[in-house]
Amino acid sequence: MSVLSKPANLYRLISRRTMTSSTNHYNYLVIGGGSGGVASARRAASYGAKTLLIEGKAMGGTCVNVGCVPKKVMWYASDLAGRLSHAHEYGLYKELSITKDHLTFDWPEFKKKRDAYIHRLNGIYERNLQKEGVDYIYGWAKFNTDGNVQVQTRENEAKIFSADHILVATGGEPIYPKTIPGYEHGTDSDGFFKMETQPKKVAVVGAGYIGIELAGVFHGLGTETHLIIRGETVLRKFDESIQNTITDHYVKSGIKVHKKSQVTKIDKESSTGKLTVHLDNGTTIDDVDDLIWTVGRKSMLGIGLENVGVKVNDKEQVVVDEYQNTNVNGIYSLGDVVGKVELTPVAIAAGRKLSNRLFGPSQFHNDKLDYNNVPSVVFSHPEAGSIGLTEKQAIDKYGEKNVKIYKSKFTAMYYAMLEEKSPTNYKLICAGPEEKVVGLHIVGDSSAEILQGFGVAIKMGATKADFDNCVAIHPTSAEELVTLR
Amino acid sequence: MSVLSKPANLYRLISRRTMTSSTNHYNYLVIGGGSGGVASARRAASYGAKTLLIEGKAMGGTCVNVGCVPKKVMWYASDLAGRLSHAHEYGLYKELSITKDHLTFDWPEFKKKRDAYIHRLNGIYERNLQKEGVDYIYGWAKFNTDGNVQVQTRENEAKIFSADHILVATGGEPIYPKTIPGYEHGTDSDGFFKMETQPKKVAVVGAGYIGIELAGVFHGLGTETHLIIRGETVLRKFDESIQNTITDHYVKSGIKVHKKSQVTKIDKESSTGKLTVHLDNGTTIDDVDDLIWTVGRKSMLGIGLENVGVKVNDKEQVVVDEYQNTNVNGIYSLGDVVGKVELTPVAIAAGRKLSNRLFGPSQFHNDKLDYNNVPSVVFSHPEAGSIGLTEKQAIDKYGEKNVKIYKSKFTAMYYAMLEEKSPTNYKLICAGPEEKVVGLHIVGDSSAEILQGFGVAIKMGATKADFDNCVAIHPTSAEELVTLR
Repeated sequence: MSVLSKPANLYRLISRRTMTSSTNHYNYLVIGGGSGGVASARRAASYGAKTLLIEGKAMGGTCVNVGCVPKKVMWYASDLAGRLSHAHEYGLYKELSITKDHLTFDWPEFKKKRDAYIHRLNGIYERNLQKEGVDYIYGWAKFNTDGNVQVQTRENEAKIFSADHILVATGGEPIYPKTIPGYEHGTDSDGFFKMETQPKKVAVVGAGYIGIELAGVFHGLGTETHLIIRGETVLRKFDESIQNTITDHYVKSGIKVHKKSQVTKIDKESSTGKLTVHLDNGTTIDDVDDLIWTVGRKSMLGIGLENVGVKVNDKEQVVVDEYQNTNVNGIYSLGDVVGKVELTPVAIAAGRKLSNRLFGPSQFHNDKLDYNNVPSVVFSHPEAGSIGLTEKQAIDKYGEKNVKIYKSKFTAMYYAMLEEKSPTNYKLICAGPEEKVVGLHIVGDSSAEILQGFGVAIKMGATKADFDNCVAIHPTSAEELVTLR
Repeated sequence: MSVLSKPANLYRLISRRTMTSSTNHYNYLVIGGGSGGVASARRAASYGAKTLLIEGKAMGGTCVNVGCVPKKVMWYASDLAGRLSHAHEYGLYKELSITKDHLTFDWPEFKKKRDAYIHRLNGIYERNLQKEGVDYIYGWAKFNTDGNVQVQTRENEAKIFSADHILVATGGEPIYPKTIPGYEHGTDSDGFFKMETQPKKVAVVGAGYIGIELAGVFHGLGTETHLIIRGETVLRKFDESIQNTITDHYVKSGIKVHKKSQVTKIDKESSTGKLTVHLDNGTTIDDVDDLIWTVGRKSMLGIGLENVGVKVNDKEQVVVDEYQNTNVNGIYSLGDVVGKVELTPVAIAAGRKLSNRLFGPSQFHNDKLDYNNVPSVVFSHPEAGSIGLTEKQAIDKYGEKNVKIYKSKFTAMYYAMLEEKSPTNYKLICAGPEEKVVGLHIVGDSSAEILQGFGVAIKMGATKADFDNCVAIHPTSAEELVTLR
């Protein structure tokens, strides 16, 4: 039923002739078993390329182990906690004390359950590799100066592999602000997923999507949550409508947002383990159980790129062209280690397209990922989602008089029965006389699900008239996007 | 910020010259204040047409008063009841007895709240008409043989109006199967919204979307629910994937689905008011508090169409052409009374386009609604949604070898933490060598919200490649639609 009917094992047929017989030689060697590496390895093997994947920690990488997946699971718990507090206003279980001040969450047990789920996914990843005929080993890889790759395996053996093509897909890791005294008393998003108990009081530092998601989860689950941001708003890379809507709603819903603030020092009381967080505006936040740094991420290197001369930029990200080629022939890179658009589906798509190009049939010999109009979402409360240009970017690019903005702010029907409202805020940005859609920015329930289809339409080159041409689906929130005036 | 900047009052300027000065003469007279009538009246007035709207019952018609809106509110309550039962598995409020067998729902109070919301909406509809300068009166309209419209007002006055253009948008009403003995002991969907107390045990008759939605609501709120259907599956007008997924899940979740069954008789015990429902397979269902007929709807007439010679078909639906013209010059019709696609947004869009054509600027002089690829959804548990052709229709139209089907069945991540799973089932139907998308059928959480954007893309002529060309949004359910293989 697939559009790509089973590919002929073209690559295997062709390349076997020139291949050495060594079991340590591969057509394709992938360093990093995250979203991009696994997808690329599987796609390559599906074309018959003899493929090896090397992973240092757990299969699935950041997304599966310390990113998208466990984050979304925690978001579901936090979102459900919020819904539960709506029970009485919806006439449900009125004799039970399901109210925010009676909220309890069994963090330790739920963490075990979440871990078990992740562990199942690790196994599924392994089995999918096996099914597709990808060899994989656990260990830490490093380029030798001769271009071969040495692996220190989990069993502490040293192995050496050679390959026709090598993919660097090592991903990224959180940054610590090491100039701040006491920074080491804080943890990072990896540490968040290791927490065995729920902090009573937490400080999250950073206005990016990771901080905003974690702050939302903590707050929704009943932790006193302090969010420390340098500017006036969160999510600074997003359109102002998203920045303002989420910032305002976080403040309104009770998250203690410290604006225009930076951490200057962290003290730890040795007897209790409690932290005191000092801000540059003189505020101190006492009795903090955990502080989480979400101030940025960096490429995960240390794999001897210097031994083969692969270039990195001043942010230590691997430099690639639009085809994911590094400056070294036969070495490629993609995903977070490249840092262009740090999203799982981007790494997956780039990885598949690279393998299409390297090992696939001839129609794919120029295959590459188009990084324009990639949708991205934030699992805040409520969710936010974005495609294309912000209003500012659109005005910079097209000029103010060539840009038309359509907006809708409303309360979704679900909240008509509730005292506490959650905002919905949609903004559509159109350019030129044909009103081509160049940006879409949405905040509100189900935004992540809503955005995908509009992403297809925008990528197809949708105009405002195309949006209006589809009959609305009633009653939904998404219908507002096809009836904007 | 609107694409249609305030229109010049063109129509008023032109038509005033020929207009009589009688205050009882209008440019546009709309019979029926439902979705279509209100939208068309407002649009006409926005162009300067002197417009009168006549409504017999409550402003907003079926959708606002006894359809989409109160239905969705009840769906929210029922959906939330389901989510609440997930609390413990998500580690929340474990010390409280939030389990299905402890479910309570304060129907009487919630009904009052829902009614108050509807009442607020009625007021908003009135104010929107006022803002746009539409006159409206409450009363029952009837055509006289001279083409004028006589109204028996709510205050029991008789008034007579003439108009250049008259719209018949009277909507529809539920059908009762009057040949079944005791049919009068049942009620209809209008009656559902009048229920002051929650039945302990209910029988819903009919496999269409109204029956499926009401059965889902009752069951979710804890009523013992019997669903009586003539065939093996529900939602017979939808693709088989939707029919089977919803039927199976309703059975699995505990709704008592009586397949291949028809009601032959209903007895009512006079002392208790309880019903006994007899089926043609010999089954009897005792102790039924309420039976709801959802066996179809018919046009709401009785407005003297025969006096002016407006044609109706053998189903008593008003016959119109693609421009909503009836056979009588100057009389138009749309919405449920026409019965083509009985959806609120269809009536709204048709109503606006008709007024664009009749009263708008010249670029709209051929404006009409395209009834192809109209998305529609069912607020079942879980939701279902559909655009375009079913698999059978596609094969009939294009031939089996020219149709490619892509499917994905999976469990959404939310259910990974739960014992009870709710199904997700997606089917994409493509035709021809370019794999143009001719049908999309989805079941699963948030389907109504997910479908809207894909609707835009499909209406634009999307191919499978267009779907694949958009990067996925992770982790969502909708992303499966852009990664189908």
